[in-house]
Amino acid sequence: MSFLDEVPWNGEGLIAAVAQDAKSGRVLTVAWMNRDALQETVDKKRAVYWSRSRRKLWRKGEESGHVQKVREVRLDCDADAVLLSVEQEGGIACHTGRERCFFRRLENGAWVTTDPVLKDPAKIYGKKK
Amino acid sequence: MSFLDEVPWNGEGLIAAVAQDAKSGRVLTVAWMNRDALQETVDKKRAVYWSRSRRKLWRKGEESGHVQKVREVRLDCDADAVLLSVEQEGGIACHTGRERCFFRRLENGAWVTTDPVLKDPAKIYGKKK
Repeated sequence: MSFLDEVPWNGEGLIAAVAQDAKSGRVLTVAWMNRDALQETVDKKRAVYWSRSRRKLWRKGEESGHVQKVREVRLDCDADAVLLSVEQEGGIACHTGRERCFFRRLENGAWVTTDPVLKDPAKIYGKKK
Repeated sequence: MSFLDEVPWNGEGLIAAVAQDAKSGRVLTVAWMNRDALQETVDKKRAVYWSRSRRKLWRKGEESGHVQKVREVRLDCDADAVLLSVEQEGGIACHTGRERCFFRRLENGAWVTTDPVLKDPAKIYGKKK
């Protein structure tokens, strides 16, 4: 039996995947994995997700270079989420050019952007997004 | 317009919610919120989730006493996950009596339990679970 068989993949065949920076402890991204994505993540020791919008495997960093090298994979008690401890290449996890995707904080009933753009996405992706 | 309107609630009306210990930085739990849960979390400054199995609001700690006091709420770039910075009452987030739900680590193709039970769940819940 494979470790993959212990995951109760949801109706779409997915599990939530949280990536946490191994050094800073910051939560960088939440994305989704299907069976193939989790297998490849473990095999290659780099984060591979399932892109729900593009409906294909998303090898994080394939366009941006912002690969997440995976140090550790954990599973939660009801096995509906994995937690990755990662080294974030380039120090940028978000497609907006920020360190992390959680760059908005709720303040007095409004989402306020608190984190700076570290690199213009047009320069990351070589074209305007 | 409410901050709730900026969340693209999924087909089930839910968003993923990651809770991170404000002190240790450990990721404790991943659960789900609906609109009412997120509103109450913000109003009461304690984590309230939607229990998918029980199909009702789950005020974390209502049975166990292991309340998550919420210091900060963040939203990710595509608004499909929130990140809570919490103070975990009792130092136990998991219903198994462990500090966190991510107590299993993948080692050589198998999920291995790495974290100790800090308190017998029978004592937490007053009955065998």
